Amino acid sequence: MTDPLSSLTRKPDRGGDRHLVDAVFDECVVATVSTVLDGQPWVVPVLVVRDGDRLLIHGSTGAGALRQAAAGAPVAISAFLLDGIVVAERQFDHSANYRSAVVRGACRPVVTEERAAALDAFTDALLPGRPAECPPHTASEVAATVVLELPITDDNWVAKQRSGPPGAPESDVWTGVVPVRQSLGSPQSDSTLPVPASVTGFLDRHELP
Amino acid sequence: MTDPLSSLTRKPDRGGDRHLVDAVFDECVVATVSTVLDGQPWVVPVLVVRDGDRLLIHGSTGAGALRQAAAGAPVAISAFLLDGIVVAERQFDHSANYRSAVVRGACRPVVTEERAAALDAFTDALLPGRPAECPPHTASEVAATVVLELPITDDNWVAKQRSGPPGAPESDVWTGVVPVRQSLGSPQSDSTLPVPASVTGFLDRHELP
Repeated sequence: MTDPLSSLTRKPDRGGDRHLVDAVFDECVVATVSTVLDGQPWVVPVLVVRDGDRLLIHGSTGAGALRQAAAGAPVAISAFLLDGIVVAERQFDHSANYRSAVVRGACRPVVTEERAAALDAFTDALLPGRPAECPPHTASEVAATVVLELPITDDNWVAKQRSGPPGAPESDVWTGVVPVRQSLGSPQSDSTLPVPASVTGFLDRHELP
Repeated sequence: MTDPLSSLTRKPDRGGDRHLVDAVFDECVVATVSTVLDGQPWVVPVLVVRDGDRLLIHGSTGAGALRQAAAGAPVAISAFLLDGIVVAERQFDHSANYRSAVVRGACRPVVTEERAAALDAFTDALLPGRPAECPPHTASEVAATVVLELPITDDNWVAKQRSGPPGAPESDVWTGVVPVRQSLGSPQSDSTLPVPASVTGFLDRHELP
């Protein structure tokens, strides 16, 4: 492929496979949606969930943000995980360890009948088990929410990564990697009730190794 | 303003000021650059540094990624910090605490004579004091690197945030916030030399409160 939108023009050894796409979107929590509005680049951060072979994003029906995407404008949904800062001998060789993915295409609105289930999938991916702890969605809640899906196909994505230490230094100096991770703090609440199982599950799932 | 590219069409109470723009770019480490290529949205994650009233991004002269931006195509540089997961009574009211910013405009390449200093500023923002620990840039290193600056003006950005707990529940259930932060691990190295001051400074600067 020579399409600059979907190929790696540099360092093809950093290319990743579909497993990398899934890992990035399963871990990132927040992604960015880029589209084109009157010829100008337009971008907004959104919560994202991967549900099998599709990405789900959502928002209010009043959000101008998603209107373009809902209307079928081409989008690129991008996510990255910063895994480390690579400290090399020379400034030139400093780098970051990361995993990133971009999925391209046109979003489809999830129809009303499937929207409550999609919202459950969304909550469930973020906080496993949380939908069952909550009252059911009302019809007006479902009607007030836009859910968009972007299919992940065989060829509409690019994934990239870098891992490992910097190259060996030429002189006797310290080089290495500072690991970076997203970590969670203790739940904050005014409630004296026990923390729900979905939240403790979320904490366990994201605990630092 | 009614320009959808630069105004908040929803929840204007979540709008932020220039201090928020600075805070987001000073903490984020990685941002995304969105532009338009043949009418299609194009996006790539990049390391970003705020240096006063400009954002700096950089890459190899061989990176197709930055070529469009270097040629003056309109860009939107977007960054976000995920601060927490907001756990509400109803799924509908779940949310995220976050800070985000987008700066728009056209990048300018930093000229050769100013590029070494810009690269220093870049390294220095990430690892304070690191430039002084490294050998000076060579002319070929400087020549092999594209540094782009995007000015932050009075009106080319949007900043948003949400903080605090969810609304009070209507029934007697636990609601609250799970804080999310970027945290650093212990430096990894094969070297037995002491960890450089720049790296220990980086660790101190990012230590969890």
